[in-house]
Amino acid sequence: MTKVTIWNEYRHELTNPTAASIYPQGIHQVIASGLQAHELSTSTATLDEAEHGLTEEVLQNTDVLIWWGHMAHDEVRDEIVELVYTRVLEGMGLIVLHSGHYSKIFKKLMGTTCALKWREADEKERLWVVDPAHPIAAGIGEFIELEQEEMYGEHFDIPAPDELVFVSWFQGGEIFRSGCTYKRGQGNIFYFRPGHETYPTYHNQDVIRVIANAVKWSAAGKGAAPKYGHVPVPLETL
Amino acid sequence: MTKVTIWNEYRHELTNPTAASIYPQGIHQVIASGLQAHELSTSTATLDEAEHGLTEEVLQNTDVLIWWGHMAHDEVRDEIVELVYTRVLEGMGLIVLHSGHYSKIFKKLMGTTCALKWREADEKERLWVVDPAHPIAAGIGEFIELEQEEMYGEHFDIPAPDELVFVSWFQGGEIFRSGCTYKRGQGNIFYFRPGHETYPTYHNQDVIRVIANAVKWSAAGKGAAPKYGHVPVPLETL
Amino acid sequence: MTKVTIWNEYRHELTNPTAASIYPQGIHQVIASGLQAHELSTSTATLDEAEHGLTEEVLQNTDVLIWWGHMAHDEVRDEIVELVYTRVLEGMGLIVLHSGHYSKIFKKLMGTTCALKWREADEKERLWVVDPAHPIAAGIGEFIELEQEEMYGEHFDIPAPDELVFVSWFQGGEIFRSGCTYKRGQGNIFYFRPGHETYPTYHNQDVIRVIANAVKWSAAGKGAAPKYGHVPVPLETL
Amino acid sequence: MTKVTIWNEYRHELTNPTAASIYPQGIHQVIASGLQAHELSTSTATLDEAEHGLTEEVLQNTDVLIWWGHMAHDEVRDEIVELVYTRVLEGMGLIVLHSGHYSKIFKKLMGTTCALKWREADEKERLWVVDPAHPIAAGIGEFIELEQEEMYGEHFDIPAPDELVFVSWFQGGEIFRSGCTYKRGQGNIFYFRPGHETYPTYHNQDVIRVIANAVKWSAAGKGAAPKYGHVPVPLETL
Repeated sequence: MTKVTIWNEYRHELTNPTAASIYPQGIHQVIASGLQAHELSTSTATLDEAEHGLTEEVLQNTDVLIWWGHMAHDEVRDEIVELVYTRVLEGMGLIVLHSGHYSKIFKKLMGTTCALKWREADEKERLWVVDPAHPIAAGIGEFIELEQEEMYGEHFDIPAPDELVFVSWFQGGEIFRSGCTYKRGQGNIFYFRPGHETYPTYHNQDVIRVIANAVKWSAAGKGAAPKYGHVPVPLETL
Repeated sequence: MTKVTIWNEYRHELTNPTAASIYPQGIHQVIASGLQAHELSTSTATLDEAEHGLTEEVLQNTDVLIWWGHMAHDEVRDEIVELVYTRVLEGMGLIVLHSGHYSKIFKKLMGTTCALKWREADEKERLWVVDPAHPIAAGIGEFIELEQEEMYGEHFDIPAPDELVFVSWFQGGEIFRSGCTYKRGQGNIFYFRPGHETYPTYHNQDVIRVIANAVKWSAAGKGAAPKYGHVPVPLETL
Repeated sequence: MTKVTIWNEYRHELTNPTAASIYPQGIHQVIASGLQAHELSTSTATLDEAEHGLTEEVLQNTDVLIWWGHMAHDEVRDEIVELVYTRVLEGMGLIVLHSGHYSKIFKKLMGTTCALKWREADEKERLWVVDPAHPIAAGIGEFIELEQEEMYGEHFDIPAPDELVFVSWFQGGEIFRSGCTYKRGQGNIFYFRPGHETYPTYHNQDVIRVIANAVKWSAAGKGAAPKYGHVPVPLETL
Repeated sequence: MTKVTIWNEYRHELTNPTAASIYPQGIHQVIASGLQAHELSTSTATLDEAEHGLTEEVLQNTDVLIWWGHMAHDEVRDEIVELVYTRVLEGMGLIVLHSGHYSKIFKKLMGTTCALKWREADEKERLWVVDPAHPIAAGIGEFIELEQEEMYGEHFDIPAPDELVFVSWFQGGEIFRSGCTYKRGQGNIFYFRPGHETYPTYHNQDVIRVIANAVKWSAAGKGAAPKYGHVPVPLETL
């Protein structure tokens, strides 16, 4: 069974009454419950645990890491980011959610600022499937509709995604590339936009299904670990 | 269990003594046996059967179609090509092998001539994995080495692949994009280069493993069937 | 100076009073005037001319072909489509506009049905630039806003574009990949969504600028013509 | 006229007799002379100049930066790397040559280790054009042949290129994705493999032509600078 570690900053839920009422045990617990229904083995980790809950041992036992962060990206220690980075290149899947676009790990893997436009105005978001052949869209209809969400608008400063699975329509007039896949080394990465802490987005079962699909997609079997460095002996006679 | 139909032109093996000695029951049977060891359910179809063995019923019962053709591409009837085409867009996987690059179905799906360079000179081919995160490379080392194969050289007149999984080195001085993925509609397509009829390529278990991986990759769950056409009522009030 | 041939079906403007009032000399003439201001050499061709105005000589003298068609795609003769197809693979640029998504030439080059959703409801369209590094977006702001247009919605049954330059927001709730680049052989192709015949879209100078940019992009210098076929002598000694 | 700054580490040419004999004034001067013949305005900068020759003023006056480094990547100061990074995202082109794959700036923009295999064995390299529609291949034949070069082999730990223009064949049995384009922010990036300091690679006029083409490609007009951050007022009435 695929082993998922759900990492959450877990600050808003402790200080913001709206977030606390929607996610009383934290966003990570709602995602964990949701994924268990998709036959995934879950554990959680949060910023204020020792090592942010992400020791080498935890990461070695993680097939796919889910990342939610927002107000405290800078508090994530660089050496933990390096551990996560190394594991992604070795093949651990990574699902970056919503405001995680500005996390150290996502920016490091993308090579760009990952900047975007944003607005909190209780807008309707409709995530259209633009790649209906993609396993991340399995079981989803033509779109997912969220009555209220924070708006994220283009330009989103990311490399062109390897695959673009969802594009969001926002009531206020913007669009956004909201479901993007990338590969880095042997690791599969999925960025998925929705999930502001003051909306019940992770209680939406289509949103959970997308995350579960992404976990399974990113955990798929890989080729042999690449070898690098000096190879003095040619394969052919020169 | 994923249902694979292996389509083979099945002419060389009946007329060319070398091909006949390597594939006495036909290329399709060797591939079928190989795939069964990967827990896939196989059936076969050949050019000279009624409807080329590809009736609507057969195609409806096929999750993934494998295609090997060479000398008789023109004998494949256009209405059968249309049936296959429609099924691919509906989500049937398609694995096109070797000289199938010039098949009607592959050219129609690519939108290009699919022309290339070729030479029969018993050359060594080494297929390097350039995308070690891809499930099609699962279980394969850094490369697959084939002692003797037909050479295919660039330029290969295909659209840039969605994903490039293998690149071949040939002894005679050429390279070739030899493992290429595409999506068309809801269908996943994989082109895989090796497999000239006078070499024992499909007896190589790494080659079979790649085909098995590609079958599983192409059969992965899909999003809902897209809807097209006139939608007179807007989702939002105008 | 880059030589552009603007091909127009030129039927709506002769029969539909609204189209006639907006484009009294035809859509092609408005595009031609617009492009001349961008230092491009223009000529035009229409469906009801002999050979649809697209003789071999015309095509040999065309660096970039622009295509607008809608109600009479089926009247375009297959042999003319073949001529255009061959020239694109040889390196002629091709800009396909709006309802040209259903033209024979575009479907043939894409390998898909090119189906989509549509609605005529005088909706606002906002085309967001999602690739601000692309020369096709040169001189354009963050978006182009069109007060009224026909809606085209996803899923758009095309191969994933090589580059996605624009995504449209529509008032009625849909989004659309509205500026897409492709390469086929040595030819560069750009699909650009706006331009329903009953709206003054081609009088919009940002729309014209995008088309002019696309012409220049698609006409850029190419590598040597590829060679295909049998190469009996290896480059290296075997 | 496009303004190119050629940055060179300029250490090997001062200490290695072979490099010194081939590039007595440094690799940068040979590239500069070559590019001038392609109507480009060149200046140079080297590691041991103040600020590595890359002040803010220099970078503001640079349309395209070329980067050659090898033994002293670590001596490039992080604040200069940040300046270059910011300018690339703002739209300055960047051409990374050969061992520059391991430069701080390239690794930062790629988000990967950029590791590869290598061997110095005087091997023949043949760079095949796999994208003959690309302006970077303009004026080049089917391939460029270099009698002797250092070998770089796959796996090359880079993100899948936006466009793959060249693939190298090496005498010793390896292949390599040797001409790769990327976009980051508004900047166009090209990685080009050949150019070990002990071979006369930059005296080869096809190699220079590719670099000149890449400079022109990367300097092409861009869209408006994207805007990021809080946009409290929606474009549409909510």
